[in-house]
Amino acid sequence: MSGYTPGEQPQAGRFVKLNTNENPYSPSPLVARAITDAVARGLSAYPDPTAAAFRTRAAAVLGVEPDWILCGNGSDDILTIVTRAFVGRGERLRLPYPSYVLYRTLAELQGAVSEEVRFNRDWTLSGGFAAPRDDLRVAFLPNPNSPSGTTVPRDQILDLAERLPCPLLVDEAYADFSDAHCLDLVTRNEKILVARTLSKSYALAGLRFGFLVAQPHVIRQLLKVKDSYNCDALSIAGATAAIGDQAWLVDNRRKILATRGRLTSGLGRLGFTVEPSQANFVWSVHPRVSADHLYRCLKAEGVLVRYMRYAGWGDGLRISVGTDEQIDTCLGLLEALTG
Amino acid sequence: MSGYTPGEQPQAGRFVKLNTNENPYSPSPLVARAITDAVARGLSAYPDPTAAAFRTRAAAVLGVEPDWILCGNGSDDILTIVTRAFVGRGERLRLPYPSYVLYRTLAELQGAVSEEVRFNRDWTLSGGFAAPRDDLRVAFLPNPNSPSGTTVPRDQILDLAERLPCPLLVDEAYADFSDAHCLDLVTRNEKILVARTLSKSYALAGLRFGFLVAQPHVIRQLLKVKDSYNCDALSIAGATAAIGDQAWLVDNRRKILATRGRLTSGLGRLGFTVEPSQANFVWSVHPRVSADHLYRCLKAEGVLVRYMRYAGWGDGLRISVGTDEQIDTCLGLLEALTG
Repeated sequence: MSGYTPGEQPQAGRFVKLNTNENPYSPSPLVARAITDAVARGLSAYPDPTAAAFRTRAAAVLGVEPDWILCGNGSDDILTIVTRAFVGRGERLRLPYPSYVLYRTLAELQGAVSEEVRFNRDWTLSGGFAAPRDDLRVAFLPNPNSPSGTTVPRDQILDLAERLPCPLLVDEAYADFSDAHCLDLVTRNEKILVARTLSKSYALAGLRFGFLVAQPHVIRQLLKVKDSYNCDALSIAGATAAIGDQAWLVDNRRKILATRGRLTSGLGRLGFTVEPSQANFVWSVHPRVSADHLYRCLKAEGVLVRYMRYAGWGDGLRISVGTDEQIDTCLGLLEALTG
Repeated sequence: MSGYTPGEQPQAGRFVKLNTNENPYSPSPLVARAITDAVARGLSAYPDPTAAAFRTRAAAVLGVEPDWILCGNGSDDILTIVTRAFVGRGERLRLPYPSYVLYRTLAELQGAVSEEVRFNRDWTLSGGFAAPRDDLRVAFLPNPNSPSGTTVPRDQILDLAERLPCPLLVDEAYADFSDAHCLDLVTRNEKILVARTLSKSYALAGLRFGFLVAQPHVIRQLLKVKDSYNCDALSIAGATAAIGDQAWLVDNRRKILATRGRLTSGLGRLGFTVEPSQANFVWSVHPRVSADHLYRCLKAEGVLVRYMRYAGWGDGLRISVGTDEQIDTCLGLLEALTG
């Protein structure tokens, strides 16, 4: 097998990076202070295995109890834990297509079968996503979806969970940028598990911190699978401070959504077909100029966007919402390339 | 299955913690500075997927090339990656007994079979550890071993690797406290993989950073299995600074070994049978007073040590090497309890 290939991460380049949905702003200033304090408290002892400080703070913010929360070394760790807990060799993991390529890699690593259910061309999802199968062990649904930025409605997610014979993991990596989320549905159906990350909406991709919200008996099972000390003392401290600063989140979200509107309308003016996005990126296709060509020309000019090609579906550009200035740079180049 | 239970980690207690082999000293002061600098550089971007900064620095220190190094979120992550890469459901993972209980948990998580080969009563290892079997996929050998603190000689490890039909992971979590290590053997046999952690000898258990040294073609296979961003930006920065400060390591090692001698001779004076340790802990059994009783009495007095019971083998106390003051407190209590 080939493994999962993440977006390009030039560490020393001078690129405008609009390819991996990082937040263009600095995180809450409380994060740096919390990390400094944690360093001062010392690093020679093992961290808290269940990150109780984060669970307590997040529970208060999200309106659940702490034992409904599992913490992970990024939401990738959460997805890995869920896959390892539920899916064995030869068993089945269902995902929509096109969506997050990592899900398929996780199935491969388990020697499991990944089954892709196609989105309709308008990015709605057919009821076939809930079709029962004896070997089906988990279904992953990114919501908002990547690369489209679109969402499946809450009532449909509840309906899918009711009909599925297995857990439904709703990957809400981008939900803080959306009009709706499914956190409260976890109380209504034990099969619904909601994954979150602090990488995007809290501007902490460098810290690696994600979490899962699920019913306590599910969390207890998953705790057995995770590495004992999967989150380090600094990420626990930083993540706890970040989720405690909801005023920062509200302000950051406002800025990202404003720039998302600027990017969406700018692409529209250049003739792109643009999906209305509920995330911090926009999916677009130009009717005349190939996405691959645009990607390569942008890269040559120092702007990295994500070129995606999905077999049997098509290709396009996924452009992360940067600052207004970054987006204007990108739009200016695209104007020259498509004019 | 029940999952792995790590040593007690009272987060807010006032215990003298001699139960999880943490280093009693603060890490190199360069670590805090490197973390502060990394926070200032920003946390909103993803970290380097392969931690090139650490690999380059560690390679220079250890005398290997950077592409011989794989970085992990603690050496637990390294052990998980190796297990997932080599061992499938129904296949076999070999470990000595008694040793690190986590190895068995990792096998269980994979649906694999764990096969325990007993140490001899003097903690030497029989050649049966290298016996070929069709379903054998990896062998784990902690060296120094826990709980005994004893080592298998280098030439025997090379011999085991030559006869084994599968990779031999030598878990050198405690090797910096030992007279010998196996890093250079990796060049002599591609089946030898050496795991290291910064938790113990670099006093960074709170940071979660470990690494593997193996031949480049092995590293390339393992890279496919790890989470894309398994190490965060702060742990990479801190670990790079730590391994770069070898003067700190030499000084810390000197202190730990001096106190280990004090603990060993103190226990001997109280009548304990003590294994000569090559690690930062000591394994001991008292001929008259039960280890379980001693553990409970010490805990009641605010001193946590590790009580270990191994079915079919026996029990004992594993006492981490703390500061001289901590060890004197522990020895004082043990004197009263065994006198």
